[in-house]
Amino acid sequence: MGILGATGMVGQRFIQLLADHPQFEITALAASDRSQGKRYDEACAWRLLGEAPLGIKSMPVQAPRPPLDCDLVFSSLPGDIAREAEGSFARAGYPVISNSSAYRMDEDVPLLIPEVNHEHLGLLERQRAQNSSGGYIVTNPNCSTIMLALALAPLHIAFGVESVVATTMQALSGAGYPGVASLDILDNVLPFIGGEEEKIETETTKILGRYDNERIEPAPMAVSAQCHRVNVADGHMAAVRVNLKRKTSPQELHETLAAFSSLPQELGLYSAPHSPIVVRNEPDRPQPKLDRDAGKGMSITIGRLFPDTVLDYRFVVLSHNTIRGAAGAAILNAELLVATGRLMAR
Amino acid sequence: MGILGATGMVGQRFIQLLADHPQFEITALAASDRSQGKRYDEACAWRLLGEAPLGIKSMPVQAPRPPLDCDLVFSSLPGDIAREAEGSFARAGYPVISNSSAYRMDEDVPLLIPEVNHEHLGLLERQRAQNSSGGYIVTNPNCSTIMLALALAPLHIAFGVESVVATTMQALSGAGYPGVASLDILDNVLPFIGGEEEKIETETTKILGRYDNERIEPAPMAVSAQCHRVNVADGHMAAVRVNLKRKTSPQELHETLAAFSSLPQELGLYSAPHSPIVVRNEPDRPQPKLDRDAGKGMSITIGRLFPDTVLDYRFVVLSHNTIRGAAGAAILNAELLVATGRLMAR
Amino acid sequence: MGILGATGMVGQRFIQLLADHPQFEITALAASDRSQGKRYDEACAWRLLGEAPLGIKSMPVQAPRPPLDCDLVFSSLPGDIAREAEGSFARAGYPVISNSSAYRMDEDVPLLIPEVNHEHLGLLERQRAQNSSGGYIVTNPNCSTIMLALALAPLHIAFGVESVVATTMQALSGAGYPGVASLDILDNVLPFIGGEEEKIETETTKILGRYDNERIEPAPMAVSAQCHRVNVADGHMAAVRVNLKRKTSPQELHETLAAFSSLPQELGLYSAPHSPIVVRNEPDRPQPKLDRDAGKGMSITIGRLFPDTVLDYRFVVLSHNTIRGAAGAAILNAELLVATGRLMAR
Amino acid sequence: MGILGATGMVGQRFIQLLADHPQFEITALAASDRSQGKRYDEACAWRLLGEAPLGIKSMPVQAPRPPLDCDLVFSSLPGDIAREAEGSFARAGYPVISNSSAYRMDEDVPLLIPEVNHEHLGLLERQRAQNSSGGYIVTNPNCSTIMLALALAPLHIAFGVESVVATTMQALSGAGYPGVASLDILDNVLPFIGGEEEKIETETTKILGRYDNERIEPAPMAVSAQCHRVNVADGHMAAVRVNLKRKTSPQELHETLAAFSSLPQELGLYSAPHSPIVVRNEPDRPQPKLDRDAGKGMSITIGRLFPDTVLDYRFVVLSHNTIRGAAGAAILNAELLVATGRLMAR
Repeated sequence: MGILGATGMVGQRFIQLLADHPQFEITALAASDRSQGKRYDEACAWRLLGEAPLGIKSMPVQAPRPPLDCDLVFSSLPGDIAREAEGSFARAGYPVISNSSAYRMDEDVPLLIPEVNHEHLGLLERQRAQNSSGGYIVTNPNCSTIMLALALAPLHIAFGVESVVATTMQALSGAGYPGVASLDILDNVLPFIGGEEEKIETETTKILGRYDNERIEPAPMAVSAQCHRVNVADGHMAAVRVNLKRKTSPQELHETLAAFSSLPQELGLYSAPHSPIVVRNEPDRPQPKLDRDAGKGMSITIGRLFPDTVLDYRFVVLSHNTIRGAAGAAILNAELLVATGRLMAR
Repeated sequence: MGILGATGMVGQRFIQLLADHPQFEITALAASDRSQGKRYDEACAWRLLGEAPLGIKSMPVQAPRPPLDCDLVFSSLPGDIAREAEGSFARAGYPVISNSSAYRMDEDVPLLIPEVNHEHLGLLERQRAQNSSGGYIVTNPNCSTIMLALALAPLHIAFGVESVVATTMQALSGAGYPGVASLDILDNVLPFIGGEEEKIETETTKILGRYDNERIEPAPMAVSAQCHRVNVADGHMAAVRVNLKRKTSPQELHETLAAFSSLPQELGLYSAPHSPIVVRNEPDRPQPKLDRDAGKGMSITIGRLFPDTVLDYRFVVLSHNTIRGAAGAAILNAELLVATGRLMAR
Repeated sequence: MGILGATGMVGQRFIQLLADHPQFEITALAASDRSQGKRYDEACAWRLLGEAPLGIKSMPVQAPRPPLDCDLVFSSLPGDIAREAEGSFARAGYPVISNSSAYRMDEDVPLLIPEVNHEHLGLLERQRAQNSSGGYIVTNPNCSTIMLALALAPLHIAFGVESVVATTMQALSGAGYPGVASLDILDNVLPFIGGEEEKIETETTKILGRYDNERIEPAPMAVSAQCHRVNVADGHMAAVRVNLKRKTSPQELHETLAAFSSLPQELGLYSAPHSPIVVRNEPDRPQPKLDRDAGKGMSITIGRLFPDTVLDYRFVVLSHNTIRGAAGAAILNAELLVATGRLMAR
Repeated sequence: MGILGATGMVGQRFIQLLADHPQFEITALAASDRSQGKRYDEACAWRLLGEAPLGIKSMPVQAPRPPLDCDLVFSSLPGDIAREAEGSFARAGYPVISNSSAYRMDEDVPLLIPEVNHEHLGLLERQRAQNSSGGYIVTNPNCSTIMLALALAPLHIAFGVESVVATTMQALSGAGYPGVASLDILDNVLPFIGGEEEKIETETTKILGRYDNERIEPAPMAVSAQCHRVNVADGHMAAVRVNLKRKTSPQELHETLAAFSSLPQELGLYSAPHSPIVVRNEPDRPQPKLDRDAGKGMSITIGRLFPDTVLDYRFVVLSHNTIRGAAGAAILNAELLVATGRLMAR
């Protein structure tokens, strides 16, 4: 299995999470930058706790072009080069499990959250019709969109979501490395993250859309996002308000969220958290520092669930942006592909 | 002129802003805590840039009870003791210019922003009818409410505000000193500030309400607030969406905000900023670090003004929470009282 | 086994580290504050990752006075009440494993780092001579002293340390909770930690002193400490210079540090790290964020080892201040007491 | 007057400090990067409070090569290109007032702190002998060296400094922009700043050296520096110990530092602070946030002055690293050149 973009923040998370994975083994590393040709430990500084796994350190960093010595690729390439690179791997017969934004909104590409819209994998039939190599592309959403869509999914099923207003406070690791300059964020908040508001507003309706006849009908809901960068290392937070089609009680809403469980939990996928949504009742939760690692970073945490004075309900949601919001999301996607026979584990 | 609560964060701002004020002279300091009886410089550590003014350092800190050697008092007493202390000063004949929350929602007390609702000062007639001592109470809003109400005021006049959804990211100085523990906020966001959401939701409609026949008719608008503490020293920020009664263009909205000017500007009040509302077009403004000192901390800054996908418009607003949001607000209130003959300067 | 000071930062670390400990079981919690009489989870907010262990949450918080339902007590009581409380437990027959400063410099109390001065446990004979109850007190050093003394120990054995100059940059958790106000440390460094410089300067010579005939002869070395608080959650760092009696090469110095191993490693104590001292060669290590968890927080990390231009050598040392520097230190002390037959495990 | 490196952090400080300067007027801007050819306000984002001065915003950014429309140049070019660029300006007849490290240690270049070694300007005779164009180069020290050398100067005069041990905690702005990545410094300290320790150790002895017969005899003192980056925007701090040739009392030491005044104060240079060295007695000062702006950023602040246990005395010193430590230092150098007839003001 190969990792495209292996030297970046998400690439390092891929390596960390896949180091002891029972189904996947890292056999190739690739990156788009000057690191090509170097050993991994010389190509980049490891920025997560501890050290890069021993076997990885001495692996060479290759160019993100087929062929690579692997059967599938995980990709966290930067947007600008992902489209060409991921497309060439898919055409060359590799399943591409991508965290990049390049193909997310393509008509025949699943924008997958296994707990939310696994039936969207039906779109792979359309890809197969056009690409006989056996390769295909499956994407996961933007790091902020995932937690929003995952929080909305049980509400949409139970009550119908008419509109949603989300205001995010996002972590530094979402901007990659070196990313945000320390002089810009110390004693400050940045009210702008390029392309983020648009991604949340468009991806959410595709994810929650209805799959029918090899097409996705976007969910008929209005989504508003205002995005901010705050001085937090990991853990995206969003203050959310929703209007629901069917009126409900806070109690029922709470239970609907807390009880949510889906296919990955049924299948016992390796990275699936026991509870995709943890609901907390303390007045001051969720908090990035205390809740980002819930469910090993794969659970989202919801708190401050109250009736709202303008929309119907308000709450605060938090998730680990490079685990559930990026590398962990892609790995869970791959696990679902294995469990449903679309991918061979090795 | 006396300062109640002189040792706290807002009390220190009062002292800093009044040190060279042409109309007011500090003649008495009072505080509710153990500092009573000490010299000011022994009673508290000065936490603003530079040092406490020389003349202030040696002044004694007294108890917040009349009589004090002054003709009016500025108060930033903590909520729990403000009600009794401020009431006793008013009954003893002192004008009380208060930043505390105790009397804000009282029927006969103006909740004043000079640019927004100076006609609410008519309520002082009701206080006079019940209190023949010549004393009275004028309050300024909560630090987050001020910037919201000031931003909404020109929109409400021009288009009518039907509903407003505000998500705040508030600075540490808003919690006083010692306030937020460093271990709680380093690498973190706190999604809870006690009482803040309720204050914003109730104060805003009173401020924007119509004064008629010695009564305030609250503005018929729905206000939703979600409040967060972020790791910023000074400068509250809010992401805002509004629904307007009369539809308008982004261009007209922008001009309406940027052109806003009111009675304090006409009267040339000492602390009145040239532009109460600064509108910026850069995609990444306002920012606390760069914009909190606009207009010497008395201007609010608005940016990222766009059509919204759920409500009509969205924008981000920022103001200095201990200047325009607290001490500066109270001082501007006092300047208006002087300019309108309700207070004697000295 | 009981914990005195169970609600504080170090008390929470005790609980976290002892939750799955094979030799000790928590049977009683005590604290000096208003939390007495409450359930543990109501008495304090858990500030470490995850949650307090289930069985602990419902335990009552008692007063720190004997009797308590336990056979030994770990103590992290604040200095002012520790002397009386710990003394009364010792007189009542309890072994007291203390992280507090109260008894550290007492002539008959071991100031123990198991890798450094286990022979100082001979002092317990003196305590036994005066206290027939079977109780006694063993202390661990101040959080900054531990890493300094542990770094110096192999150098002192091999080369003789004549003098040491340490400049610390200490983490927020060292000040307890709420501890340092966020407004004091954001965008700042504090050059003062009450009592800290004196503690480092006096404790170090006792720890490295020679045990002879039931007395400790302080090591004949000069110690200079300048202490600073920096905006880091966990992980104390010190820039150190040393003068050595016997001259040596950087290479030999490096090897002496890296090869250091002692009784806890021989005995395989549960909390003993494989390498008490990790030496790193990268130019930018150690760093609090990357190295504080080395050896599960029980290894110290040394880097930037070079000849100095004024003293003989310089290096930078780092350790986790609430694990190796506090709770973990005390637990390792208790494990040594068990392994040497002075304490019964249970 | 021209500014080389006008878009960087120090370049912006030059512009801010020179905007209202009575002797110098900015007539040309140059930078080494991609900004050449753009208007200044399009070439870089202004990172200081407020905005770039109006007249500057529309000035074009030129290449750092003569000719430029000016009579002297201030330079804060990066080290790698400064040597060639500054040399070519000097050869073309321009006085070069440089903050770069390129020429600091050249034998015929003054490394100037006006309060400390103004007699070193005699070296300009040697430059004149080799360069008949009228151009020359004067440099100011590294940002950390300046505060150290300024603190040592009165001690060296009065008592003789034998050796000095300095441990720095340096601000983010010292690394320029974008400089330190936020992910590297949040919840962290970095124990490495490339080249910094060497600069402090070598520059200090040149600055404090004796000028004799057109040569500098380095001061015969040993200097040891260990350097760290901390999460502070502006304000370098150093913990310092010194050995003195003549023994003295803390009282005399204190008075010697506090009373220090020199030629710039006598001449009343525009940027010269009233007190080059502010000595504070509070136990917790100096602090970057509270003291960096002392003397408009041109005074250094010393506190915690005590006898040391290894060397003779210890203290903590702080200065604003981009004012007294960079742009302000160069401007004071230029003012001295004007006052001593070596430069024409305009």
